[in-house]
Amino acid sequence: MERKKRGRLFESGMKQRNLPSIKLRKGAGEMIKDRFSERLSKMLSSDDWMILQDKYEPEENLKFESLFSLSNGYLGIRGSHEEGTKITLPYLYINGVFDKSETFMRELATLPNWLGIKLYVEKELIGIEDCEILDFSRALDMKHALLAKRVLLRDKQGRETLIEGIRFVSRANVHRMGIKLYVTPMNYSGIIEVESIIDGTIINFYDAPRFKVKHTYMKANEKLDENGAYIEVATRDNHLHVGTGCHIKAYKDGKDILKNRMFSAFGEQAVEFSDFDVVEGETVEIVKYVSMYTERDVAKYALHTNVKEEVDNFIYTGFEEELAAHKAVYRDMWEKADIRIEGDFELDRAIRFNIFHLMSTGNERDDRVNVGAKLLSGEEYGGHAFWDTELFMLPFFSYVFPKTARNLETYRYRLLDAARANAEKNGYQGAQYPWESADDGTEQCPDWTIEPDGTCYRCYVAVYEHHVTAAVAYGVYDYVKITKDWNFLFNKGAEILTETARFWASRCQYVAEKDRYEINQVTGPDEWHEPVNNNLYTNYLAKWNLRYVISLIDILKKDHTEEYHKLIEKTGLTQEEIIKWQDVQEKMYLPRKEGTSLLEQFEGYFELENVVIEKYDENDWPIRPEALKNRRARETQIIKQADVVMLLHLMGEEFDEETKKLNYAYYEKRTLHGSSLSPSIYAIMGLKVGDNSKAYRYLRRAAFIDLLNLQKNTREGIHAANTGGVWQTVVFGFAGVAIGEDGILSIRPNMPKEWENLTFRIHYVDSWLEIRISADNSALVKVLEGDHITVRINGETVEV
Amino acid sequence: MERKKRGRLFESGMKQRNLPSIKLRKGAGEMIKDRFSERLSKMLSSDDWMILQDKYEPEENLKFESLFSLSNGYLGIRGSHEEGTKITLPYLYINGVFDKSETFMRELATLPNWLGIKLYVEKELIGIEDCEILDFSRALDMKHALLAKRVLLRDKQGRETLIEGIRFVSRANVHRMGIKLYVTPMNYSGIIEVESIIDGTIINFYDAPRFKVKHTYMKANEKLDENGAYIEVATRDNHLHVGTGCHIKAYKDGKDILKNRMFSAFGEQAVEFSDFDVVEGETVEIVKYVSMYTERDVAKYALHTNVKEEVDNFIYTGFEEELAAHKAVYRDMWEKADIRIEGDFELDRAIRFNIFHLMSTGNERDDRVNVGAKLLSGEEYGGHAFWDTELFMLPFFSYVFPKTARNLETYRYRLLDAARANAEKNGYQGAQYPWESADDGTEQCPDWTIEPDGTCYRCYVAVYEHHVTAAVAYGVYDYVKITKDWNFLFNKGAEILTETARFWASRCQYVAEKDRYEINQVTGPDEWHEPVNNNLYTNYLAKWNLRYVISLIDILKKDHTEEYHKLIEKTGLTQEEIIKWQDVQEKMYLPRKEGTSLLEQFEGYFELENVVIEKYDENDWPIRPEALKNRRARETQIIKQADVVMLLHLMGEEFDEETKKLNYAYYEKRTLHGSSLSPSIYAIMGLKVGDNSKAYRYLRRAAFIDLLNLQKNTREGIHAANTGGVWQTVVFGFAGVAIGEDGILSIRPNMPKEWENLTFRIHYVDSWLEIRISADNSALVKVLEGDHITVRINGETVEV
Repeated sequence: MERKKRGRLFESGMKQRNLPSIKLRKGAGEMIKDRFSERLSKMLSSDDWMILQDKYEPEENLKFESLFSLSNGYLGIRGSHEEGTKITLPYLYINGVFDKSETFMRELATLPNWLGIKLYVEKELIGIEDCEILDFSRALDMKHALLAKRVLLRDKQGRETLIEGIRFVSRANVHRMGIKLYVTPMNYSGIIEVESIIDGTIINFYDAPRFKVKHTYMKANEKLDENGAYIEVATRDNHLHVGTGCHIKAYKDGKDILKNRMFSAFGEQAVEFSDFDVVEGETVEIVKYVSMYTERDVAKYALHTNVKEEVDNFIYTGFEEELAAHKAVYRDMWEKADIRIEGDFELDRAIRFNIFHLMSTGNERDDRVNVGAKLLSGEEYGGHAFWDTELFMLPFFSYVFPKTARNLETYRYRLLDAARANAEKNGYQGAQYPWESADDGTEQCPDWTIEPDGTCYRCYVAVYEHHVTAAVAYGVYDYVKITKDWNFLFNKGAEILTETARFWASRCQYVAEKDRYEINQVTGPDEWHEPVNNNLYTNYLAKWNLRYVISLIDILKKDHTEEYHKLIEKTGLTQEEIIKWQDVQEKMYLPRKEGTSLLEQFEGYFELENVVIEKYDENDWPIRPEALKNRRARETQIIKQADVVMLLHLMGEEFDEETKKLNYAYYEKRTLHGSSLSPSIYAIMGLKVGDNSKAYRYLRRAAFIDLLNLQKNTREGIHAANTGGVWQTVVFGFAGVAIGEDGILSIRPNMPKEWENLTFRIHYVDSWLEIRISADNSALVKVLEGDHITVRINGETVEV
Repeated sequence: MERKKRGRLFESGMKQRNLPSIKLRKGAGEMIKDRFSERLSKMLSSDDWMILQDKYEPEENLKFESLFSLSNGYLGIRGSHEEGTKITLPYLYINGVFDKSETFMRELATLPNWLGIKLYVEKELIGIEDCEILDFSRALDMKHALLAKRVLLRDKQGRETLIEGIRFVSRANVHRMGIKLYVTPMNYSGIIEVESIIDGTIINFYDAPRFKVKHTYMKANEKLDENGAYIEVATRDNHLHVGTGCHIKAYKDGKDILKNRMFSAFGEQAVEFSDFDVVEGETVEIVKYVSMYTERDVAKYALHTNVKEEVDNFIYTGFEEELAAHKAVYRDMWEKADIRIEGDFELDRAIRFNIFHLMSTGNERDDRVNVGAKLLSGEEYGGHAFWDTELFMLPFFSYVFPKTARNLETYRYRLLDAARANAEKNGYQGAQYPWESADDGTEQCPDWTIEPDGTCYRCYVAVYEHHVTAAVAYGVYDYVKITKDWNFLFNKGAEILTETARFWASRCQYVAEKDRYEINQVTGPDEWHEPVNNNLYTNYLAKWNLRYVISLIDILKKDHTEEYHKLIEKTGLTQEEIIKWQDVQEKMYLPRKEGTSLLEQFEGYFELENVVIEKYDENDWPIRPEALKNRRARETQIIKQADVVMLLHLMGEEFDEETKKLNYAYYEKRTLHGSSLSPSIYAIMGLKVGDNSKAYRYLRRAAFIDLLNLQKNTREGIHAANTGGVWQTVVFGFAGVAIGEDGILSIRPNMPKEWENLTFRIHYVDSWLEIRISADNSALVKVLEGDHITVRINGETVEV
């Protein structure tokens, strides 16, 4: 048994004060632009695109590192400071670069960080923790996906230096990352010394002594070419190589004025020293050009060359030109992804913040990676994909970035064999997807947990929580429902659905005396009741999976013979099996209260003590009932998160309005929302059943969950599922977007009173649509590209 | 041309505020003992042995690291904090482990530091820079050569932890170093996590970006055995291996309660994690047992084994027992070295502080190492030996620790071949000792200097400043004069003296028209006039070297035939050469003012503008004359340091009283004491010529130079020559100890009015003497060991 914290259980131990250095009110973005010099300010966009930090509080560093992380899908880097600070988790991840070593699971390995630029005047570091801060602000410009800063520092000798600048990780060329700093000595002339650093010393769980782990080892620490710096590391288990290289320049009047360049390999740090002359009041532009490649991209022997050439080409292209290309990509992305809410400025921006991080991390180029539970912005959950991807993030990508959605689906297809092996290992048939998935598709949810105090206990999540396999199946269905990517469905999706169906069939047991199939010893979405028998959500989705694949195979057999034969060949599926599945799905036990429409979360749930929530706090958030003081939730009907309601959300069309209403009302009173995966679902379903009361507040809470560090763990990264939940709440909830059984896109808005109008864009079939909803719930649909289509607005069918 | 700062010229750039956290008043030592818990307090000695820091001021860290450095002659470690601080130069040196790499000179390589002990409660570091400091004090206990501390810290959760402890580097077994911390949770129970660290990331010139250099590379980072940590590094040039290993334990009721041990190699840091349970108010003793060996001590392949066994044996011996053995060695050392001044408490303790560091660094076991200009307490001058050793430190060792003195002499003999090669390289004959000497005897004074601003210029010190070769010759003479170590003189010293004489003979040029020998293009001790012709000091010592060796060879030839033949064989000395030397020494030009006794510092000195010092500051310190405002000192008679007066100090018996008085008076008015090597010599000579006025103040200044950071560069290490100068001022100056031409020890005290009496001990010939001087200048000499001897007290010969 080895050390390793089990993420979810550990969160509460990581407290962090929430200080008020983030400014979210209207006008904050313009305020910072006013502060910035013109040259910087003109690079930035407007208030509605900006997240502003206007005060340096070291204790908030970790939160801002998450909030200000940048990702281009290929890599993610946290918003640490170039000069380094005492409190920092300066992680950089490349999606797909996992390592286990002596820990419990393969986790994203933190890789050499290239942010380091240290400026010195006569040996004094011009840094925020070394000087008096006369002025400080940073701004995440979401429109352009760049992080801007302005600091005016006074050192111990009274010298004042203004440092303004930006950084970005290019989405035009994902192997290019750049930093530009405008450095102005305000009241002195002299020499500024600069260290350009690639730091290979950083380890995972840097600030947690018990869990610290180094996932890489050094392969090279050398000059990039005549100058510059290059570090190559390899992961410890698989010896996957990663190369990072950089050049630094200091421009004045267009000429590089750096001199006395000198490279040093200090152990695991590559440091290029140089200096330049400065004149009082005159600005020098420091530019750091960086590139990273891994063995996943190019051959190992060519890593250094590729990095070098990319840096050279970046310099040749120019910082501004690369930035322009990067901005152009983001312009396109925002054209697709932005949601505009007029009349509710702060929420509008907060929603944008969630979309920014989610869309930035999605990868339209690589189908070998997924999106981790903390995106690429923090270390919690090791970068693993959960059911969060399919049920919270995938709808966004399917509607907005279908190529990325296809990659997420292909990722699951690529790991189908691993899921097959996982099922076999656990004594089942077909494919069982792992609760936590990294690069190789094996189960990454650890069997053992070490608590912060060093005690170990057995962790049963992977043993019982099987519904992720249903989520993967549902994801295939949902993705295809939205995108009509029949090619994927017939060639890959069908195989996934077949194998997951096979898993469910083997996972059930037939109970002869009741003539029904049961799934026992299982955990549903509500993790507070673990394990249970016949979790309705799980049973229903298993049944659905079986039913859906039977009809799909039927279609293939009839209309897509080639694909059908391929599927049979690949899966060895027999007619007997399909007959068996038919039986299983027909006789799957779906617990409900005898003679009512009240669905039972699991067999025996209604026999538990009937505790309900009675009090709500000032944010309309449920207060833990007194009854739970001396009792575990599992002994009562109090649940952690949407479970039956999650089912209603996914399978709404299969239940009548009455059932939805009744069950929503019942379970809403018993859900404590102990997971960030819950409020958005209740918001959507609340709107659907006509209980709008909490939806708007749920949305606000979800939208600000990281900006205001409401869960106190934003330091560990952005809540990825929540970002997708926010999007769904707006689009499926308030805008009421849905696809009917007839395949027609329907819009049935429920605009909150705070909103004047709501505008967003989605892809549907071959069209790209803009949907604009007014305060009176009327909706206007415009086809921006593609064919005219039929939509149903507030029940009325229109051609647009 | 490579980067490297040239030390002496750089000093002024390294400013540091002098904060009042050092307590030197009487009673300070007792005060701290009162604060400490009984268990710690009883380990400490009394006020007169203690240097107290009673407040934590981060900006003073570097000064205290020097002041609180510990050395056992084998290694030296600066007084950094176990938990690490932001401002720190946590250097550890082993004398003799030098490396050049890309720098200008072979310098002591900073080696892996084993101080690291980090304690955490729930991930919070219990450190002085992470917690609120409720109580802080550290004390250097010079009697026992240990560093004690007491800190009471309150973390962010309000938990209070008391940490008291000591560290020492054993002089009983120089490969053993230990730390003991008493840890008491004052208001909580729980788990304390501990990291025991060996830090291999530290580099030379850590806080000077332009000069940073890593002199070692990692060879191993692994467990010491089943547990513990071991790091092996090698120097980059010579691949000299150094091994460092440690074990940590946490004792309660005599049992080791550490659990969950886990070793991690984090790049160049070896970290052993473990934890232990604590109960409110109950103390746990953490002990770290450390050992270091180098390839200079044992074979490379046996390094790890040796380190491991030494640590095991240390644990077997026990911390307290090793500490007791260490204290016993220091008791013996202090019995020999201590100086007691009654009636002047602060000065008494300050003098002890100087002796403490000097004697601690002297190595009685290893004749391959010398004593660097900053001892082993800081990085300035790279650990190089200068003439400082022979003329400032050697007299102390010769009188007090003759074995160490012999090692210092043997060091020069070992490097005689290198000095021969150096002479040849420079176009001379014989042996020319390098201005700066490391391990291999080659010149380590760099030819080029890089200023803090990056500009380079040629450094001529090594080219012109040749008097170090005379100092080495004089050192042989002086050592033997004091110790009567004829064996060394006849077998080794004679060879040194012969080769240095040969150097001087070749260094001179005969000027026929004046029928005299001259030494041109040379720099004397006063470095502000560089170069000059016929520096009196240099010429005189060259002449003395020639004359002395001629008479020595004469004695050998007559009375020690075997040694004589060996010398002739080794040196190829011929009769013609001796005849030539006779001529040279007789006709050596010794400049003086025509027709007077006024010696001329160098030819033409009296023709320079006759600027004199007219003003003195409140400490009687000369103020730079106005005349120097727009002029360089070299154009005037203003000098940096004792030059003619240095000659009078060394060769006093060869000048009459009148000459000494006249020249002292003349040069004293023209010396600005720009070097710490000057005041002590003026103090001694002032007392000798009856000008007592400044001597006492000079001594105070010298004694407090580091304690009060008077030169503002104590951060770079203790001023080694000054420590020897302090001893000489007391013993040669105020006590008036000298050895007459007849070999009789004479004592002619000049007690300052502040002193009630003065007591110290010295070796002379075969006796060990205690000399006690009263306020009335009467002296009592007691033979503590050995033969009765004759001494001359205030001119009167007595048998003791």
